[in-house]
Amino acid sequence: MLTFPAHDYSAATGFGTNTLDRLSERREDAAFIASLRADTAARAILFVGELIVVGEGAQVIHPKGLVDALGGQWDEAVLLGVDGTGPLFAATVEPFGEDAPFTLENLRPLAVEGAGGVPVPRDVLGAVAQARGVLGWHMRHQFCSNCGAPTVMAQAGMRRDCPSCGAHHFPRTDPVVIMLAVNGDKCLLGRQTRFVNGVYSCLAGFMEPGETVEAAVRREIWEEAGVQTSRVSYHASQPWPFPSSLMIGCFAQATSTDIDPRDAELEDVRWFDRADIAPMLDQTHPIYAAPPPVAIAHHLLRAYSVHGAPVVLADAPTPVSA
Amino acid sequence: MLTFPAHDYSAATGFGTNTLDRLSERREDAAFIASLRADTAARAILFVGELIVVGEGAQVIHPKGLVDALGGQWDEAVLLGVDGTGPLFAATVEPFGEDAPFTLENLRPLAVEGAGGVPVPRDVLGAVAQARGVLGWHMRHQFCSNCGAPTVMAQAGMRRDCPSCGAHHFPRTDPVVIMLAVNGDKCLLGRQTRFVNGVYSCLAGFMEPGETVEAAVRREIWEEAGVQTSRVSYHASQPWPFPSSLMIGCFAQATSTDIDPRDAELEDVRWFDRADIAPMLDQTHPIYAAPPPVAIAHHLLRAYSVHGAPVVLADAPTPVSA
Repeated sequence: MLTFPAHDYSAATGFGTNTLDRLSERREDAAFIASLRADTAARAILFVGELIVVGEGAQVIHPKGLVDALGGQWDEAVLLGVDGTGPLFAATVEPFGEDAPFTLENLRPLAVEGAGGVPVPRDVLGAVAQARGVLGWHMRHQFCSNCGAPTVMAQAGMRRDCPSCGAHHFPRTDPVVIMLAVNGDKCLLGRQTRFVNGVYSCLAGFMEPGETVEAAVRREIWEEAGVQTSRVSYHASQPWPFPSSLMIGCFAQATSTDIDPRDAELEDVRWFDRADIAPMLDQTHPIYAAPPPVAIAHHLLRAYSVHGAPVVLADAPTPVSA
Repeated sequence: MLTFPAHDYSAATGFGTNTLDRLSERREDAAFIASLRADTAARAILFVGELIVVGEGAQVIHPKGLVDALGGQWDEAVLLGVDGTGPLFAATVEPFGEDAPFTLENLRPLAVEGAGGVPVPRDVLGAVAQARGVLGWHMRHQFCSNCGAPTVMAQAGMRRDCPSCGAHHFPRTDPVVIMLAVNGDKCLLGRQTRFVNGVYSCLAGFMEPGETVEAAVRREIWEEAGVQTSRVSYHASQPWPFPSSLMIGCFAQATSTDIDPRDAELEDVRWFDRADIAPMLDQTHPIYAAPPPVAIAHHLLRAYSVHGAPVVLADAPTPVSA
């Protein structure tokens, strides 16, 4: 079982603690994979479409027998990895009736609130994110993007192969930059129309081909706020399986303050006082609120609230003179 | 035209300096895109399959008229962005005869050595990487992965739409971790069979669903070398368009020294003395060599050569107390 050092800020984000050994170097070994499937200690995380199967006490890890019992195919279950208990797989099953001792839940509220007042343990959420990411990818990639033919699962579910043109397809992960632009004791937040009233969060956007993390951070802040930034420093990253993003969390030094958005992506974008951030994070602010700890935005804001403007100097000790 | 602050280490990597304004917020505006296509100052970067069209003096940016002249379709050219000269597009053209005043070049050696002794300017290489990345994506994504139907270009070439099931597909960028594990005055390098004799480089590997950058770094070092690591710190990133990677460059603190690879990906992996790194980078070492400055591995190694073990402490000033 993997462990996480205290200075791994990424492990503090939602879905950031995944204790499985993925055994990625053994996925080609069919006999080994078969032995894991045959293991009586094998378990599975189950989805019906995008909804996760949750049992009593917020249980999301089920005995392997439940896969076939709920109309799934154990032979097609995706290997997530192994921990101290045994192998863990992910599988899609059929919808079930209301009398079943399970419910179907959306993963996002489940991660924030748990089920029936019981939270899902942090390290289990890491494996759940992996399961949702790879199962969602299989759902959306039944056909070969290169030739249009149906594809088949390979490598214990971590690849899809095209029998027609021979292409190999791997799970897709989309890098997204999410960042807090800082100007002394002010930081830049925006709100999307779909946010709950009063909630503001960090700006964010998908990276594009031929772009560095730093360039993407500056571009997105420019597009969404019209604010210019210079120094960018990385803080932490987070898998975000809605459907398949890697959130790359950064701070950016603002060099202008006028707000004049280039696009219409945000309903509002504005500067907040650093002193407002802690109550926004703790949901005690009279007007505004910030995202919960499941979101990497919470952790960027918490670091800024505690340390202030020096957060953007994180990489200062290692200038390259070459 | 975009500029890059001196402390942007990513801008120092090959393909890391892209001065185009991508105008991504205006891609939906068909009339605006048409006006850019009609602009007499519009230019294009051209490819035949994976090979780039290079003119006299290592010229890779051509007048827009050359697209149709070489059998391409100007109406289907992909908008890369604009700079002080005008709009810049990317297009695929037909193979041409030996009497044409152009050659077809592989991008990797072109980036390292230039053409006919003439280097391609650094900021032009950024746009070239963007062009190769997005054109390659179009080549491999003519069909809908969701339903198998043929797709069509949208948003000036930055999206493909499926007329059959309605899916929108965006260019794919695969995050890859590349890292230098450090143990005081020793660092861990490996060589692939395809490397030139004596060349060693940083370990690297594709990130997986449900994984943080830090977890991926530790996993890849464990798989390829059997070495355990704790603290991971981000250094820089690089677009690597072979075919569509984002290289995320990190340092990692090694906590074990025995080498015992889990997989067979590397021909050899070993510890190098810090004192050997500078001559390896400068190609003056009697036995070994390291990658050229086009590669982010070069920059990780240069930073370690100059600063030593403190490179892994880059993020130390911003612990999160929350």
